[in-house]
Amino acid sequence: MKTILLIGIGAGNPDHLTVQAIEALNAADVFFVVDKGARTADLIRLREAICARFIREPRYRVATIADPKRDRAPADYLAAVETWHQERAEAYESAIAKELEDGQTGAFLVWGEPALYDSTIRILDKVLACGRTAFECRVIPGISAVQALAAAHRIALNTIGGAVHVTTGRRIAEAVATGADTIVVMLDDGASLEAFPRRDFDIFWGAYLGTPDEVLVAGPASEVTDDILRLRAERRQAKGWIMDTYLLRRRPVSA
Amino acid sequence: MKTILLIGIGAGNPDHLTVQAIEALNAADVFFVVDKGARTADLIRLREAICARFIREPRYRVATIADPKRDRAPADYLAAVETWHQERAEAYESAIAKELEDGQTGAFLVWGEPALYDSTIRILDKVLACGRTAFECRVIPGISAVQALAAAHRIALNTIGGAVHVTTGRRIAEAVATGADTIVVMLDDGASLEAFPRRDFDIFWGAYLGTPDEVLVAGPASEVTDDILRLRAERRQAKGWIMDTYLLRRRPVSA
Ligand SMILES: C[S@@+](CC[C@H](N)C(=O)[O-])C[C@H]1O[C@@H](n2cnc3c(N)ncnc32)[C@H](O)[C@@H]1O
Ligand SMILES: C[S@@+](CC[C@H](N)C(=O)[O-])C[C@H]1O[C@@H](n2cnc3c(N)ncnc32)[C@H](O)[C@@H]1O
Repeated sequence: MKTILLIGIGAGNPDHLTVQAIEALNAADVFFVVDKGARTADLIRLREAICARFIREPRYRVATIADPKRDRAPADYLAAVETWHQERAEAYESAIAKELEDGQTGAFLVWGEPALYDSTIRILDKVLACGRTAFECRVIPGISAVQALAAAHRIALNTIGGAVHVTTGRRIAEAVATGADTIVVMLDDGASLEAFPRRDFDIFWGAYLGTPDEVLVAGPASEVTDDILRLRAERRQAKGWIMDTYLLRRRPVSA
Repeated sequence: MKTILLIGIGAGNPDHLTVQAIEALNAADVFFVVDKGARTADLIRLREAICARFIREPRYRVATIADPKRDRAPADYLAAVETWHQERAEAYESAIAKELEDGQTGAFLVWGEPALYDSTIRILDKVLACGRTAFECRVIPGISAVQALAAAHRIALNTIGGAVHVTTGRRIAEAVATGADTIVVMLDDGASLEAFPRRDFDIFWGAYLGTPDEVLVAGPASEVTDDILRLRAERRQAKGWIMDTYLLRRRPVSA
């Protein structure tokens, strides 16, 4: 039998690795790396630094999986993602078949928490469902960007007894409409920051969380959102990429 | 200056501690323990095991904070929680004033993720707001029960591009009404398991997650929820307490 480990490595701070993740790193014979092109060179370097720091006796191999191209502006969003996931499943399947022997352990390093806005679990489920390759799959949780955000701002995610609604930038209007008092937004391209009623919310924003480049802004959304948009554009321009997450907390309704 | 660390210790599995949490444990001069009575003896033992395993040179003291009694069936839920938090703030404040010297580091071990359904951050904010005691406060994120649940079931929390609505048992009906396709329920007393439309959801349930007593059940809610309720009652009876978390995933609407 083959084993595949999905290892949550935290969202930027190597100190967020768990004991379980470190053990898993040390158990891996092969690390599967999905090649998404040059854009993520910084993130590749961070992964390499994690392996260098935590793996006690480096005896692993690295196997690269070419990532199928994705249609970024599809007419049918869900269908396009499904097609893309199917193509990825085939690429993952042949890599696992070719690179991993019976009795060996393969690993994927997953950014943040593997269960949150990451497709690796879903892709491996598809591979298993095809039935051509068998392996045991284990998921090792990791600190997500949401948690890094809350810790950096020293805030609770929920209000007392309240719900926490975690969503993507493209669903911000929907989330606001449900009346949720706490909304956490990930996977934003900047557009969602222009698409909620500022006077109703306080905002807690963070970019490059957990890394030396971490930037934090918090305050009434009506006062600080323009600053955030400016900062976001500047930093993105300077570094070539940005990852940011924010929490909206509904302000008490005044009389 | 005094330093207070809020250390997320995971929701039951000591291997879920992060490198940062372990460093924080080793930096603490005083551990503040909130005395909630005998009911949580198992959990106290787990905390002791964590300290014994991860603290390299035990030179810390333990200071107990008596927990003010809480009205469990108040007429006004929010007001009662507020009063209770205020009393707790006073208890915490005097413990910090009395037990911690300038230059020293105090720590609270927080179950799971400190930002999720835990009042420690909020109470310490109240203490700081009073202005009588000054300290620097840092939050160290931890793996939550939500993450332990997803990892144990090897599922993603979100559907593709979908939102994740995390809430408490008492708000289950509200969550269902928003049309959310993923609902995670914590702080349930069993009642919420009877209070959602079973035919609409698959359920992924877990109790004592991450501990040797972990129990998992998954399936169409209409088929497995009665089993979960029975199992929940049995285990709770046998151990004297239970902590469980579950995820509801809306089933595709059939024609
Ligand atoms: C594909 S999702 C992966 C999330 C990841 N699994 C997690 O648990 O954090 C990428 C999104 O996560 C958020 N994110 C990840 N790392 C971040 C960081 N270091 N700082 C801020 N946001 C981050 C951003 O919203 C980004 O668009
Ligand atoms: C006061 S809240 C604390 C949550 C914690 N801060 C976290 O991040 O997991 C307690 C609730 O968390 C969930 N929980 C905590 N530990 C758990 C475990 N080991 N197994 C299942 N549920 C757990 C249960 O829903 C429980 O009612």
